Amino acid sequence: MTTRSIKGDPAPVTVLGLGPMGQALAAAFLAGGHDTTVWNRTAARAEILATRGATAAATPADAAGASPLVVVCVRDYAAVRAILADAGDALKGRTLVNLTADAPDRARELADWAAERGVDYLDGSIMSPVETIGGPQAVVLYSGPEPVYQAHRSSLASLGGTPSYLGADPGRAAAYDVALLDLFWTTMSGYAHALALARTQGIAARDLAPYALGIVGLMGGIIPEFAAEVDESRHPGDDATLVSAVAGMDHVIHAARAQRLDVGVLAAARAVAGRALAEGYGEDSFSRLTDVLLRSAAHR
Amino acid sequence: MTTRSIKGDPAPVTVLGLGPMGQALAAAFLAGGHDTTVWNRTAARAEILATRGATAAATPADAAGASPLVVVCVRDYAAVRAILADAGDALKGRTLVNLTADAPDRARELADWAAERGVDYLDGSIMSPVETIGGPQAVVLYSGPEPVYQAHRSSLASLGGTPSYLGADPGRAAAYDVALLDLFWTTMSGYAHALALARTQGIAARDLAPYALGIVGLMGGIIPEFAAEVDESRHPGDDATLVSAVAGMDHVIHAARAQRLDVGVLAAARAVAGRALAEGYGEDSFSRLTDVLLRSAAHR
Repeated sequence: MTTRSIKGDPAPVTVLGLGPMGQALAAAFLAGGHDTTVWNRTAARAEILATRGATAAATPADAAGASPLVVVCVRDYAAVRAILADAGDALKGRTLVNLTADAPDRARELADWAAERGVDYLDGSIMSPVETIGGPQAVVLYSGPEPVYQAHRSSLASLGGTPSYLGADPGRAAAYDVALLDLFWTTMSGYAHALALARTQGIAARDLAPYALGIVGLMGGIIPEFAAEVDESRHPGDDATLVSAVAGMDHVIHAARAQRLDVGVLAAARAVAGRALAEGYGEDSFSRLTDVLLRSAAHR
Repeated sequence: MTTRSIKGDPAPVTVLGLGPMGQALAAAFLAGGHDTTVWNRTAARAEILATRGATAAATPADAAGASPLVVVCVRDYAAVRAILADAGDALKGRTLVNLTADAPDRARELADWAAERGVDYLDGSIMSPVETIGGPQAVVLYSGPEPVYQAHRSSLASLGGTPSYLGADPGRAAAYDVALLDLFWTTMSGYAHALALARTQGIAARDLAPYALGIVGLMGGIIPEFAAEVDESRHPGDDATLVSAVAGMDHVIHAARAQRLDVGVLAAARAVAGRALAEGYGEDSFSRLTDVLLRSAAHR
């Protein structure tokens, strides 16, 4: 096939993998007026999209061969590799945009794999939930060769939001992704545990939730300040010191243990803070912990 | 002394302990027009408040004897006990409001201690930072006998915000406190780690921070929904299952280990999620973990 797109005309796009996110991506391309070819290992999902105007391909090779831009979004990179193996040479000369979440080193390995096969490669990370895709709230990060990004920028804009290009290192989008997932899953685990601790005290989740929103609201003010302290290696304790943070953590651990709740997560957090106290940083702010984590990694 | 307050006239108040929070409490009472007596183990801090109109007392007994309402806010309950021992009988017939953070069982023990000595007791938890005290953003929770709370409600209103009365169980404010601190310190630990992981990938904290705000913004939508699932024992996986959560956690752990970063916190969180998978809840939502934590506590 040839690239039929004239400037301003939506270019054809292929979407490989039709889990909830892949379906949302394909639907957003369709809504953007792109000829959209889809493939999924379980064909039924492709047929649903076909009723909305997509072309269901029988194989990854057929799907990849249908468009200059091929987007893949599946569970992990092992699944990506299996699909790409099936696609064979059909990707050569095309652009592969991999929106599958995984670690940065795996993104870099896949970029090397693509380069060896004459495939242009961008790695991307989707930072907002399925329901945001195609709308203004979507957040998708990209990294890889800038000319490749620029060539497909207008197509990728159909996914919504403001697409963010982070640089040539193909691992950079995944690096943002893992750091943000680190915050997200740790926070989610903290919330799951907080609701369990509340329940042992006879507090319903719905009664705690409004105050939990207040805690999250506090984070809105803390996040940029904490980041500035880390970048400037400046950790003023002022009104909130590590000593008082550890006292707070210990109250929680004490209360959770009294109810026989697993305290693994907060005990691990307390251990890092305890190391900072042992190193003499008790009067510093909590942002000192980023520094302590980095230095201990450097010494391993 | 006698209570000089006429209805509508601010009643005298004593503040024991003048750390950053105690100073803010005393300043808020002064601003509210209360005759405010202060005491601190290190007298210099009391003198600073004296220049702003407070009366500096020489001993906890003198301070407690000066007002019908005595507020104490120090590092922990051990410090509270030491001060109350020094105050001796001076508290008898007065109301003690303990705003020191600690675990619920310790609040209940102190309530018993106060009852044995003829002291009315309220336990409180301050859920907002020092700088909010006295302003509309202050969040202070109270629990203990309702008549005691109602008798002092207008004085406590000088601390700002909308004072929240949670019930007669004196441990209830501390129970909210530890559950919310659980969420807060776990989240803070996740952020400290996320910034360390980002730094190992060459990402400055200030570059990650805007996206971290986006993650916290997502929590705003998730918190009430998650709470409803917990209260209703209903954990629909829909677009976001525990299997995919664990896959995300594993990407983070893999990336952090590759940089030799301590992964204790997220590994502990992953262990809880892994237990849920082992119990067959892989297609459920993350809120299933609250249930798994509670059931495993019940079996210990």
